[in-house]
Parts: sequence; structure tokens; C-alpha cells
Amino acid sequence: MRTTYAYTKAAPDTDLTLTQISRRDLRPDDVAIDVTYCGVCHSDLHEIDQGNTYPLVPGHEFTGVVTAVGSSVSRFRVGDAVAVGNIVDSCGTCPMCEVGQENYCTSFPTLTYGGTDRHDGRPTLGAYANEYVATEGFVYHLPGNLEAPAVAPLMCAGVTVWEPLKRWEVGPGKKVGVVGLGGLGHLAVKFAHALGAHVVLFTTSAAKGEGAKELGVDEVVVSRDAAAMEARSGQLDFILDTASAAHDLTPYLRALKLDGTLCSLGALGSMSFDPLALLVGRKSLASAGSGGRRGTQQMLDFCAEHHITAEVEVMPARQVNEALARLRRNDVRYRFVLDMHQN
Amino acid sequence: MRTTYAYTKAAPDTDLTLTQISRRDLRPDDVAIDVTYCGVCHSDLHEIDQGNTYPLVPGHEFTGVVTAVGSSVSRFRVGDAVAVGNIVDSCGTCPMCEVGQENYCTSFPTLTYGGTDRHDGRPTLGAYANEYVATEGFVYHLPGNLEAPAVAPLMCAGVTVWEPLKRWEVGPGKKVGVVGLGGLGHLAVKFAHALGAHVVLFTTSAAKGEGAKELGVDEVVVSRDAAAMEARSGQLDFILDTASAAHDLTPYLRALKLDGTLCSLGALGSMSFDPLALLVGRKSLASAGSGGRRGTQQMLDFCAEHHITAEVEVMPARQVNEALARLRRNDVRYRFVLDMHQN
Repeated sequence: MRTTYAYTKAAPDTDLTLTQISRRDLRPDDVAIDVTYCGVCHSDLHEIDQGNTYPLVPGHEFTGVVTAVGSSVSRFRVGDAVAVGNIVDSCGTCPMCEVGQENYCTSFPTLTYGGTDRHDGRPTLGAYANEYVATEGFVYHLPGNLEAPAVAPLMCAGVTVWEPLKRWEVGPGKKVGVVGLGGLGHLAVKFAHALGAHVVLFTTSAAKGEGAKELGVDEVVVSRDAAAMEARSGQLDFILDTASAAHDLTPYLRALKLDGTLCSLGALGSMSFDPLALLVGRKSLASAGSGGRRGTQQMLDFCAEHHITAEVEVMPARQVNEALARLRRNDVRYRFVLDMHQN
Repeated sequence: MRTTYAYTKAAPDTDLTLTQISRRDLRPDDVAIDVTYCGVCHSDLHEIDQGNTYPLVPGHEFTGVVTAVGSSVSRFRVGDAVAVGNIVDSCGTCPMCEVGQENYCTSFPTLTYGGTDRHDGRPTLGAYANEYVATEGFVYHLPGNLEAPAVAPLMCAGVTVWEPLKRWEVGPGKKVGVVGLGGLGHLAVKFAHALGAHVVLFTTSAAKGEGAKELGVDEVVVSRDAAAMEARSGQLDFILDTASAAHDLTPYLRALKLDGTLCSLGALGSMSFDPLALLVGRKSLASAGSGGRRGTQQMLDFCAEHHITAEVEVMPARQVNEALARLRRNDVRYRFVLDMHQN
């Protein structure tokens, strides 16, 4: 076994502490990665606050440098700059895997942390760590013209919004709504704008919409302003809802044109909607999560071409508990990234 | 005013009785229609049993013969065989009307019964009657090669299933599910088959699936058989759910392929589903209702070309209460049609 250090939650009601953990010895198709930057995702916070499996090492959107490769690795060499997202393996043979949607693998993908390795049966530990070992098939080359810390959040937040934007053909001539301007929302805005769409941001307060225009937003609508919402009725081709707090989807369904789609990335179980708002105008309610290998590579290529990265605040890894505390009170613009070399 | 006879519910807890009612004098764009056949729709029963506006004259899918025309009518002459559906007027200027989706008119379409005329403000009374007066824009020529009684149900049940089948591009190479084999479902099967799709019928019992293959079904799945449902996971491109009783949509969402859509024509308010079944495979839940003028004409043209009509049991109009009683206990295959000349 290899050893490394990781920010670990060892038991309920404790902070994360720097702890020695083990990584597997390299299998033929594995690469070992010196983790440089790791994004702090909302789902990390959810797992830290509400999970019940210990030890927990969060972190599933990261960049790094290859330090060793297994005997059959062909796509990477020691010294390569790389990036990894929230999925590190899948069955590879089901209909979803066959079309590059490993995120929907019918036997469930292996998650970067909180999952179970398909070969040795050990629990996976995340990238709030100095080293990560991953199968090369789920490792991506870091685009050479992009800054590593700002790429890290693309690997989870980025592909999560990229895939639905592509699935619903967002592009020139389309009016697209984005609900919420957090880690996911601000990337959805950047992508939709770069794809050529007219972008309408729905936000709960005018203050949160500040700075939105610089990101690519054409119009800001305060969702608590019923008159402003009513004025948008029947105007949008597609809405991507990135807000995770429970809310009523009805005003957003009303904002769609004939045959429009509202795709929710939050927990739909906590949402509600008036069925009539779906029927009138023959609208669709959809949901999506994460991304597959094909979509992830496509997104990275698009980001390299359009020079798009996340807006991040980089913090030393040793301040991880402070970053989490600030994220809990929504004091972040737009994503924290941990510098894993600053232990 | 003109006078005619209609099967009328005059008060709560009474049967329909043949009563004299009045129709408006013809406006320049009106046609008067001697009603020949009128379908008995589930929504008629719903209105009879649960409505609270009197007098009620149901009936919104009918055929007839033109007996008089207003001064500006250009598309019809006395003696023309015609058909009318559940919408008889709309604003004509909103974005929905502009694209021929008068069923989603933003100021609500004028319903054939239970609505309010946009010009004189009078309540509309339906086609369980000997005469109906309608604006020519919402009257259709009866295809010459089709039998009138079997065309009547096309005007509501038919177009209601036709529009979503077209919207979701059902055709050759597509696997399509139809839930329920009643008035709507049996027409959905006929249309999907004629459009070239592979048709899977979901029904609550094998008995109800009898005769389905003659209508165009390729496979019958008993929805109460969990193993049979599980075996269909990830197989269908599109499912049209015509079942009106409350049920769990989760097994149908699971039966969809990546990016598939389940369109419910029942009251979604009474349905439930597991949000995860929507997320995994990036699926969509949609709803739709009725049809517009463009879709109705397109459907009639398709039916004429493929010689498709509804499977009906024709009853004399004087037996309307018996037909309703049988419909209440689901004793119909597949649609009752009243012969309005048999009072």
C-alpha cells in the first residue's frame, strides 16, 4: 500500500483533521496523482454534515500532476498535468456506459469518495489529500492554457451543467434561464453565453445578481418579484435550475415557451409544482446529475477553446474547516478551491 | 335565437333529460350543424358527476351536417359533412394561437361546453344535442372515406394523443409505450403503429390487453407484474400515459432509455414518482392536453390516408344515461358514441 495525508472526518461531530491514509498499490491501468487543487463542492458539505460513514475524506473535483503510472497506462506519463471529477470507474458494459454516460451506469458508477472500488471492495477516499490513485480511463489531461485551481470545479460543477445545456441544444437563437448563481449556476451562465444563447438569470435578490452581467447574463430577474416573473411568462426555451433549497417550480414552468423544458439539478423530492403549469404549453420537467466521460472531455475542450474556467477563491488546505464554515453560511463567490500543497 | 333539443343535466343528482335549449342566431362566421354522432368522453362523465354548473349539456367530439351558414362563411356549404372537437374559439392573437396551439391559448380557449362564448358571454352547451352552432374556424371537413360515428372520438381523444406522439417524434426505429387501452390509449396504439413505431402496451391485466395486437400492439406488459416491468428497464424512447386513475409513475420512468420522455395525459396532481428515477438517465416528465387546429387537421389527414378511426359502440342517444352508467364501471370497448338522431 501507498501512504499519503488527507483531511479526514474520523467520527460524527468532529472537524476534518490531517491524517495519514493509505492508497492502493498501482494496478496496471492506474495513475498516481499528486493533488494540487481540490474544489469544495456543496455535496462535500452535505456528506460532512449528514453522512454517517467514517473515515470520510471528501473531494471530487481536482487537479494534479502524475507521479507514477501502472504498466499498461498509455495516455499519461509522469509529469502530466491532469484533472479528475466525481466518478472514477463504472461497469463499462451497460447501455449507459456504452454511450459515454457512465454517470448513469446501471450498476452505479464508482464515486471518487464515499463509493466502493469495483476490484478490491475498499471504500473510496476523496481528494482533500496529497495523493489520489485512479484508473486512467477516468483521468483527463488538464488543458494547457487554463489555470489549474480554476479548472478543478469544472470537473463536477462544470460537467453537471454542461451536459443538460448540450442535451437541450442551448445555442444561438435560444433564450435560456439559469436559476441560482452559485458554483453550478455561474458556470451554467458562462457556458450558455459562450454557446451563443440569450441568458436570463433568476436569483432571489438583486444583490446576488451583482456581477452577473460580467459572467455573461443578459437579463437578471428577481424571482421573489411576482410581477417580474409574470412578465417572463412563455419566454424561455430552456431553464436550468441549480438552486438546491426547496422551492416551487411553478413560476419557472410558466416562464417556458411551448414545448420548453425545466431541468432541475437540485433534489426534486423537495420541490413542488402545479401540474397544470406543465400541461398548458406541453412542457417538460427533467432532472440530471453529473456527467460522463464523453461530456467531460467535450466540456474541457470547449473550455480550452473559449478560455472558460470557474470563478474561485483559493484557500490553503489547512483552512479547510474555515472554508466549509463559510460555505455553510453561503459566504462564497463562487467556489472555494483548496491548495493541497499548503497543509 | 334558434331552438333545439339536448340531453341536459338540470340540477345535481338528476339524470340527463331531453330538454329544449336555445342556440345563438348565426353570426357571419358561424355554421349551424345537425349533430349526427357524439362521442362519450371520460371528461363528460367527470363534469356530470363532479361539476356544479347547471344546466349542463355535455358532448365535445361530434360529427354532423351543415344546415345553414353565416354571411361570411367561406369553407363550408349547406350539406357538408363536418366534425368538431372540444374547442370552438380562442383569442387568435397570443403566441400559442399564432402557432396553431389554440388548446394552450394564454387567455384560455372557449370550450365546446362548460365554457363562455367570447362574444356574447353566454355559457356554451355541448353536442349531446340535435344542433350545434360554431365558428367556422373550429369546424373540420369530415374525411369522405371514414365512417362518421368512428370519427367523432378522433376529435377529442384522437387529437389529444396525436399531438404528443408528433411532438416527441414517434416513428420508425422508436420504441413507444402506451399506458392504458381505453378511449385515448387505443387510438394512441393505432397512431403509433401507423407512424411506424414498435408499440408496447402497459395494462393492469392480461384481459385488458386482449385484442391489443389487432390494434397494432407489438408487446403487452402487465404493469402489476414487477418482474415484467423490471425487464423493460431502459428500453423505451417515449411513453404516453393515458391512465387517469392515480398511480406511481416510477416504473414507467425506469422503462425509459437515456433522455426518454414520459408524457402523462391524466391528472398529474394525483400521480407520484421517485425523483431519482427521473435523474438517472436524464429523463423528462411531460404533460399535454387536447389539440390545436393545426394538429387536428393534420391528424384527420393522417387518419384519412391510413384509414384509421376509433373502435366504437354506437348507442341511441335516448340511452345516454345507460352509456354513462356503463362508462362509470369501465364497461366500454373502446368508446361510446351516441346516435343523436335516435332520441
